[in-house]
Amino acid sequence: MAGSSFGTIFKITTWGESHGKAVGAVVDGCPAGLPLCEEDIQKYLDQRRPGQSAFSTPRKEDDLVEILSGVFEGRTTGTPISLLIRNRSARSKDYSELAEIYRPGHADFTYDRKYGFRDYRGGGRSSGRETAGRVAGGAIALKLLEELGITLTAWTSSVGPVCADPARFDPQEIFRNPLFMPDAKAAAQAAAYLEECKKAGDSAGGIIECEVTGLPAGIGDPVFDKISANLAKAVCSIGAVKGFEIGDGFASARSRGSENNDPFCIGPDGKPEKCSNHAGGVLGGMTDGSPLLFRCAVKPTPSISSLQKTVTTSGEEKEISIHGRHDPVIAPRAVIVVKAMAAIAIADAMLTGMGARLDTVKKFYL
Amino acid sequence: MAGSSFGTIFKITTWGESHGKAVGAVVDGCPAGLPLCEEDIQKYLDQRRPGQSAFSTPRKEDDLVEILSGVFEGRTTGTPISLLIRNRSARSKDYSELAEIYRPGHADFTYDRKYGFRDYRGGGRSSGRETAGRVAGGAIALKLLEELGITLTAWTSSVGPVCADPARFDPQEIFRNPLFMPDAKAAAQAAAYLEECKKAGDSAGGIIECEVTGLPAGIGDPVFDKISANLAKAVCSIGAVKGFEIGDGFASARSRGSENNDPFCIGPDGKPEKCSNHAGGVLGGMTDGSPLLFRCAVKPTPSISSLQKTVTTSGEEKEISIHGRHDPVIAPRAVIVVKAMAAIAIADAMLTGMGARLDTVKKFYL
Amino acid sequence: MAGSSFGTIFKITTWGESHGKAVGAVVDGCPAGLPLCEEDIQKYLDQRRPGQSAFSTPRKEDDLVEILSGVFEGRTTGTPISLLIRNRSARSKDYSELAEIYRPGHADFTYDRKYGFRDYRGGGRSSGRETAGRVAGGAIALKLLEELGITLTAWTSSVGPVCADPARFDPQEIFRNPLFMPDAKAAAQAAAYLEECKKAGDSAGGIIECEVTGLPAGIGDPVFDKISANLAKAVCSIGAVKGFEIGDGFASARSRGSENNDPFCIGPDGKPEKCSNHAGGVLGGMTDGSPLLFRCAVKPTPSISSLQKTVTTSGEEKEISIHGRHDPVIAPRAVIVVKAMAAIAIADAMLTGMGARLDTVKKFYL
Amino acid sequence: MAGSSFGTIFKITTWGESHGKAVGAVVDGCPAGLPLCEEDIQKYLDQRRPGQSAFSTPRKEDDLVEILSGVFEGRTTGTPISLLIRNRSARSKDYSELAEIYRPGHADFTYDRKYGFRDYRGGGRSSGRETAGRVAGGAIALKLLEELGITLTAWTSSVGPVCADPARFDPQEIFRNPLFMPDAKAAAQAAAYLEECKKAGDSAGGIIECEVTGLPAGIGDPVFDKISANLAKAVCSIGAVKGFEIGDGFASARSRGSENNDPFCIGPDGKPEKCSNHAGGVLGGMTDGSPLLFRCAVKPTPSISSLQKTVTTSGEEKEISIHGRHDPVIAPRAVIVVKAMAAIAIADAMLTGMGARLDTVKKFYL
Repeated sequence: MAGSSFGTIFKITTWGESHGKAVGAVVDGCPAGLPLCEEDIQKYLDQRRPGQSAFSTPRKEDDLVEILSGVFEGRTTGTPISLLIRNRSARSKDYSELAEIYRPGHADFTYDRKYGFRDYRGGGRSSGRETAGRVAGGAIALKLLEELGITLTAWTSSVGPVCADPARFDPQEIFRNPLFMPDAKAAAQAAAYLEECKKAGDSAGGIIECEVTGLPAGIGDPVFDKISANLAKAVCSIGAVKGFEIGDGFASARSRGSENNDPFCIGPDGKPEKCSNHAGGVLGGMTDGSPLLFRCAVKPTPSISSLQKTVTTSGEEKEISIHGRHDPVIAPRAVIVVKAMAAIAIADAMLTGMGARLDTVKKFYL
Repeated sequence: MAGSSFGTIFKITTWGESHGKAVGAVVDGCPAGLPLCEEDIQKYLDQRRPGQSAFSTPRKEDDLVEILSGVFEGRTTGTPISLLIRNRSARSKDYSELAEIYRPGHADFTYDRKYGFRDYRGGGRSSGRETAGRVAGGAIALKLLEELGITLTAWTSSVGPVCADPARFDPQEIFRNPLFMPDAKAAAQAAAYLEECKKAGDSAGGIIECEVTGLPAGIGDPVFDKISANLAKAVCSIGAVKGFEIGDGFASARSRGSENNDPFCIGPDGKPEKCSNHAGGVLGGMTDGSPLLFRCAVKPTPSISSLQKTVTTSGEEKEISIHGRHDPVIAPRAVIVVKAMAAIAIADAMLTGMGARLDTVKKFYL
Repeated sequence: MAGSSFGTIFKITTWGESHGKAVGAVVDGCPAGLPLCEEDIQKYLDQRRPGQSAFSTPRKEDDLVEILSGVFEGRTTGTPISLLIRNRSARSKDYSELAEIYRPGHADFTYDRKYGFRDYRGGGRSSGRETAGRVAGGAIALKLLEELGITLTAWTSSVGPVCADPARFDPQEIFRNPLFMPDAKAAAQAAAYLEECKKAGDSAGGIIECEVTGLPAGIGDPVFDKISANLAKAVCSIGAVKGFEIGDGFASARSRGSENNDPFCIGPDGKPEKCSNHAGGVLGGMTDGSPLLFRCAVKPTPSISSLQKTVTTSGEEKEISIHGRHDPVIAPRAVIVVKAMAAIAIADAMLTGMGARLDTVKKFYL
Repeated sequence: MAGSSFGTIFKITTWGESHGKAVGAVVDGCPAGLPLCEEDIQKYLDQRRPGQSAFSTPRKEDDLVEILSGVFEGRTTGTPISLLIRNRSARSKDYSELAEIYRPGHADFTYDRKYGFRDYRGGGRSSGRETAGRVAGGAIALKLLEELGITLTAWTSSVGPVCADPARFDPQEIFRNPLFMPDAKAAAQAAAYLEECKKAGDSAGGIIECEVTGLPAGIGDPVFDKISANLAKAVCSIGAVKGFEIGDGFASARSRGSENNDPFCIGPDGKPEKCSNHAGGVLGGMTDGSPLLFRCAVKPTPSISSLQKTVTTSGEEKEISIHGRHDPVIAPRAVIVVKAMAAIAIADAMLTGMGARLDTVKKFYL
């Protein structure tokens, strides 16, 4: 299938290769009347952009977004919003030697097998640069959710063996360190660990967490379009993600029912609420009014300078050492991508769910 | 959205409530000419059926499937295959008291919030019985994949704290014990652990693993329809699943690039292959020719007899003890459901991917 | 592709062959809380059923619908509604000789070419019986639209050369004659014409018109999902339909802009309205508040007893005379099918369109 | 719903307003390896472009297309192809007075009703300029079909009351006259008729026909995704189209079965073929090996300079005379749009249909 679109009503289509002319996205189905300007999008692209610290690649990508359609006099019109980001600093010559070799941990081999050939410059469509379109589109979903009182917070919760300590969790800290960790001490340790990785010509994995507050109960659909299932797809579709869990996730597989169930109680406002949140805000595939909490595993950067065994496209074994401008860790730069994808999945679930009850449909139309 | 369909070309739609007249599925897009009879489906439904051991519920569900359409003279015709499973042994009176209370860990509360009311008998559509339709439809995908030389093996790899030992992995053992564990010793320990849970009025979680062999490289689509993303959605859409990982999954977040990358070498057949499989058979969202390997976390059965705090639909706090015919663990019965969903996701990816290259499209049509 | 589903939020999936065990439909995405019982569906199936007059086939199909899921205590629950209609009076022996011949005007040849073989009994999936599932599902859409104050009226406007006279249009008359014509005199003439066709071993085509009143303005989406485009697909997907037009349709191709444009004026309620309705209630692909009016062409019944030239599956030329229980005209029986498909397309457009404006989304969620 | 995408495997998403920065399209799912350059697309855009004759608008739109992604070293890569066409000559001031008035026959009123406001400059998204994206994307489908030996020919068959005479049909003539008529004499008469319309401040409708040759039998899916149904949607989604018919279309409603059925015979190659083509190349929703033939009705240009009654957005009645650069007929410029949409629908049906039979799936994968 096509594979470059996500969502049913709030739908994003992304396009573009790392060393082509541009990357971009089309967002269709955004409600009319949302105030939107390029700055609303640019601020998230700037978080994704490399070149901000010692641990992200020193390329100079301006990542300037241009809104080409769907906005009139500062507001969305309900028609598709086309977003364009020109590729500026690509240096194709860096990559020409990669045309005839399969880099371990990259998609070179599988693209060749599927399509018969590939755009070998910088990974083409499988490059991390593909996520610029996701972030640009996700920025619109984030703006929409903001209007609905919904807040997404995402952060790096671990880098290699270094974990943020929940006891030191400080949401302000997330944007104070280049690793987007919510714990200054862990951020410093992680930085030291990455320094060591770099020296060893190696790289590190990490874990990203995301919390969504302000969601009403009942978002998501039973069976195949559970909000948890759609978030799993949204997040696992990001290049280097190898795992997803919601609430207690894999830990719940080791717990007992009496520990894992969240009792209900009557809250201060006289309404039912959960007394704990092992479920991560989802029951039966629909939001339950508690904060939605999920996490994902990001593999280490596959481009490393230490020597690796591999083969050429003509079938010879060869050793390769990948030099160039590569982050020693992917997770921190993927934080905003995870947040963008979650926003898209949630915005879509909210717009598709408006016709779930006859009484509200009648109120809407009569 | 609707939410009861999954897949693009090989598409399944399920329907039915636990205590309604029947459950079932419609499978559309199955290629014509596949030999298919009810026994091909029944054998998988029998694996899902409770009443097989001390650890699954003693209800007597016959789960007899009837093929209503799409098969003629023993072969599929290319038209939709409708599968019907009548509900026979449902005893609605068991559940009538649940109409006015929200069971912790169940979807009672969220259904009420989304739809305004619910079929409270046995969980209605959110019951585990919903998975009968998935298994029936998945049986057709499994039959199709078998014809293409692809084999899926799934098993319970842990129950609570008891893990199968990879060193004792025996595929034959999976069907010898009622917990579908591939390690007889671990199965015995897990059985003892579940006995203890039952006595304590409690329940246990577990982990399921699935391996797919025989897959050609290049299955899956880049970006949003990565095979890993579609598997994540397929598996996380199963009721009690709280986490998904592929290959090394969350462990890759703690590893280094030099450990996590799989080097390529030239195999005994003179073709490129991976020397290890940390990736779990997926690179860039497409299969890489190695076995596909994923795992998921299943939460403990939420229905437990020990006392829990909860609230009524009219807003009063109350304590509840859930009696009835409930398994103390969900994971073993979900093994076949995971296998079914994986088969559907893979069959769909294979059928949608046939037009990926002009040369093969030309060979097909000219 | 699969091809047996229609709709995005209000989605119908049909299944079943004319001489298999049953036909049916699954309707997913219907709002919860709609009062629904089998009689609501049966009354439309009874309109479609043959055996009511000299001009419809004398088969005895009971067409009894059974609701298998999605309804609890007399109301829809928001979960998929499965509808089952057993095939009772099928006499397969009538058709066995057709296994090796291609009937002119039928799908025998194309099914063989696409799938390699076919269920040759009575046309299998390409039989008119396939529309029973559409009508059953459409009945639910009709019930939903009724709750929203929307009325669909459909009728046979011509049979062969005999046209209903708009000056004699009487909505009550539609259900008084077996041809569903709104003009008693034309109905009598058409009956005589069909009698003549029968004697000649021949059949007649016809035209169906449908009017929808009570629709708010703004239903439908610009560009590809125009309500007119989705109606065109919905109606042209019915077996024997060969043409579709909305408003003045093909006549507008011969008119001038000054004739074809509908001026706006201020209506008696002080609001803008159109002074005429050449557009058929659609401007720019969205409803404009005027009645939606469309029409479709239905080809003559292809099964005729007069001699036709054809070929066998083994490649020999042969003459064929098709005997059996065949209507000499399809259009009257397709009236309810057209109405059902229009209802589904409109219900879907109304549910998908609820998120079109930020202000209404905010009012819904905040 | 979103509404700006069409197709399942070969999928087009268009975006852009007439007086925004640009219009464009993203084509996803095109097979890898198709030779493609900007000239392949530009040649069709040039056919759509106004300013070529006395009967098309004298605006100077360069309509220069830029391929931004999905093509590498002259061939498609299988990844999405992003196409950008900057708007150059838009003069927004021409349209500012239209912000507060509803033009008869335009979508001004319905956009306001659906979205609460609109981009009033030149019709915004409902402008004919929206079709540039369709033509750009359709050019890729046309290139693909060409590789598969399939040829599409489309032409203007009538302008107002002037019809091309089938006896004088000359495919070469289509591109010799500015009205794309296949009959030089009719083209001259039509030109005279349009001259008269212009003088009267009026406009004319027209009919477009399209023939597709070289199609194998079996393209299209039964039931809802019949190739005829998808073509109906594809064509009726074009702005000014008010009707669609395939083969004999509405004429078949007046014919008898013995006239309308196409007998089969054994062709010169020893294979079954139809002896006539009243069906227009489609039986049971699938191509039958004969040329596919359909036609559509295009309404007269709604923008006319003669006086029309209408209302303002503030609810006052007013008379309006629309001046500006408007064609007195839409049909000729829509010829290439119809061809583009047909190509997209057919390419999609061909790619989705590759998995219809087990034997070909096995041959593909084993």
